[in-house]
Amino acid sequence: MNRPLNEYLVTELVEGLEEGAFSAMDVVEACLERIAARDEIVQAWVALDPERARASARHPSGGPLRGIPFGVKDVFRTAELPTGMGAAAHAGSTDRFDAAAVAVLRGSGGLVLGKTATAEYAGTAPAETRHPAAPAHTPGGSSSGSAAAVADRMVPFALGTQTGGSVIRPAAFCGVVGFKPSFGLYPVDGLKMAAQSFDTVGLIARGAEDIALLHSIFMRCGRPERGAPLRIGLLGSHLEASLQPGMAAAIDETAACLAGAGCTVTRLATPDWLASLTEHRAIVNAFERFAALAPEALACHDSFRAETAATWDRGREVTGETYLTARRTIDECRQRAASLFDGVDILLSPAVPGEAPKGLRSTGDPRLQELWTTLHLPTVCLPIGHGPRGLPLSAQFVAPLYDDARLLSAAMWVERTLAATA
Amino acid sequence: MNRPLNEYLVTELVEGLEEGAFSAMDVVEACLERIAARDEIVQAWVALDPERARASARHPSGGPLRGIPFGVKDVFRTAELPTGMGAAAHAGSTDRFDAAAVAVLRGSGGLVLGKTATAEYAGTAPAETRHPAAPAHTPGGSSSGSAAAVADRMVPFALGTQTGGSVIRPAAFCGVVGFKPSFGLYPVDGLKMAAQSFDTVGLIARGAEDIALLHSIFMRCGRPERGAPLRIGLLGSHLEASLQPGMAAAIDETAACLAGAGCTVTRLATPDWLASLTEHRAIVNAFERFAALAPEALACHDSFRAETAATWDRGREVTGETYLTARRTIDECRQRAASLFDGVDILLSPAVPGEAPKGLRSTGDPRLQELWTTLHLPTVCLPIGHGPRGLPLSAQFVAPLYDDARLLSAAMWVERTLAATA
Repeated sequence: MNRPLNEYLVTELVEGLEEGAFSAMDVVEACLERIAARDEIVQAWVALDPERARASARHPSGGPLRGIPFGVKDVFRTAELPTGMGAAAHAGSTDRFDAAAVAVLRGSGGLVLGKTATAEYAGTAPAETRHPAAPAHTPGGSSSGSAAAVADRMVPFALGTQTGGSVIRPAAFCGVVGFKPSFGLYPVDGLKMAAQSFDTVGLIARGAEDIALLHSIFMRCGRPERGAPLRIGLLGSHLEASLQPGMAAAIDETAACLAGAGCTVTRLATPDWLASLTEHRAIVNAFERFAALAPEALACHDSFRAETAATWDRGREVTGETYLTARRTIDECRQRAASLFDGVDILLSPAVPGEAPKGLRSTGDPRLQELWTTLHLPTVCLPIGHGPRGLPLSAQFVAPLYDDARLLSAAMWVERTLAATA
Repeated sequence: MNRPLNEYLVTELVEGLEEGAFSAMDVVEACLERIAARDEIVQAWVALDPERARASARHPSGGPLRGIPFGVKDVFRTAELPTGMGAAAHAGSTDRFDAAAVAVLRGSGGLVLGKTATAEYAGTAPAETRHPAAPAHTPGGSSSGSAAAVADRMVPFALGTQTGGSVIRPAAFCGVVGFKPSFGLYPVDGLKMAAQSFDTVGLIARGAEDIALLHSIFMRCGRPERGAPLRIGLLGSHLEASLQPGMAAAIDETAACLAGAGCTVTRLATPDWLASLTEHRAIVNAFERFAALAPEALACHDSFRAETAATWDRGREVTGETYLTARRTIDECRQRAASLFDGVDILLSPAVPGEAPKGLRSTGDPRLQELWTTLHLPTVCLPIGHGPRGLPLSAQFVAPLYDDARLLSAAMWVERTLAATA
């Protein structure tokens, strides 16, 4: 292989490092070189300490990720680098310990390469990050830097968080693989909470196999193996009008391709309750974000950017009664969600409305992704082609609660199948 | 009233401060005086800054808690005082911002009096705190200092956290009122997580009315009013053999007293699935605590006290498959829990096996409390008498999910009714 090391998948790096084909230092240097060449444009990184990364690479600790660098969304506290939460009020904050998810990866041999840009408090006030393939376009958010850095081959994988669509949307816009596990599986210790009923740690990488490896580390389980043809349910939603021309067709082509490779594809009726999730999720999100932002609102409300201040204002208007009604409704929907999988193994739906929109003032529409965050279901996005501007289009695959390993097995098979017929 | 101000209930303080009968400074001085006189024995406080508390009392900010001091379990980060997590590894750690629950109370006018002692990482390695009424006995844990400080009239109320029985057990042993709301209602931002599927912020005070006031602040809802006679279900469990002689009789007497005041009391059959919770909860707890402790284990595993190291070791042995099976079972039990309330409004059961046990090396048996934490149901404990050693006996009242306000209405009525017939 003549590709530079920064382009390798996690699984390729693991193999090469084990074989001694190259060293952890070689990998870190390749990543740093790419960052030096590209980050002035992409602006994926907000804290980077090359000397510390090199020091870690010189003596990597053992484990399945021995010597593999990764990026950390800047809402996870880190011991080696400051944590800014994408917010002026937190700039330069330091911590004695890593967040738990960071420590799990470091404890498996991974090296923190740096902190990646996030929307303020993982909300809607965008980071400076630009789409690597089209700098006038948003990379999505709020895990903007994590997705852009992985897509631009600055780092093989990165940690993100998803409360609405903050892992899947930027991964989908940037054309890489995003994974939001079932709620509560990966540790949230050391995170700035956004809306605690939904806050989920997620992963962004360039291949489903990489996600499967990382999932096995978090879950202390065997590494999911590539699956076989399966029963796919094509699910529409109340959000179909939001799709860009071409997105529905791309999903249909994906379904046809997978059917051609042996899958059963069933078009499912859209249940009525699915549409109600958008509204109820907004209520719970606003109420909980208001409480989670209480510390900063008390000390320095003026530091909030306009989008954060607006979120906080919305939250202030939500009463406890309204909040509890929304929580009850969402709980009922979670019960009903099991029936979406009657006769099918996974669902297929658009991950985003289409290509990454132009402009850096919004990170895009979260509604297609947040449905699954709200239901606590595991979801993974995979690129399925390109739109009229040449930017990625992405589909989302969704599995029943706790079927994360089966979802990743399916994603590995789908990724391979789509690549073979592309 | 000739009682010193440190003995006043929160609601009494609110009234007196509003009327100008005394000042916030008077209240703080009374609390500090009590602490100076008693904390050498009780050891409820781990960080206290009298000058800062006085400075806050000089210019209390507005809100329903204007000028009321409170204690904060030392697993909540605070901006004004260091946060030690009950652990040598965190000693002296400082933060730029408060945890969200602390900020909610400060934003309502409350003053942080100090940080209260906690078991290491809110686990089982006990704090130094002693039972205020019997210094050779445990006050319970892990919110040991919060319960002891409130019981000893050093502060009118305190924040705690409950992952197993860490609010209800110490409150029950100390003979004060503990409240663990439905899962997820109060913000966990800024907490050291223990087991995230269960971690719940809770309250300890000396009256149910005080808890109702505080609940209305967290929930931004009207203050629950005192209820009327209601339908009570007497629930046994697989843990009856653990009860001390006299505890079952005290519960029966309480039930008889409430029946005499107009309640319907029904003895419920113990459902089979209830017993399974103890085992499944232990699995989820161990798996999640292992992940939450990853940062400290990575940086300084040697700093763990024996109990924490043992918890961490147990967690390491739990595979992802075992964990997911336990999560699924618990989810099913949560569904079934609704049926416990067929025909009754609230459940009555022992909060603890009996009086606070002698010795400071264990904080007592969490099993009676953790049933409700695992099910995510709101629970409040109230003192119902004294045992053979003269220490408090306490009952637990439990309501359906999200019926927190109704539970507190009931608790206010029960408290009044028991006091009237005592």
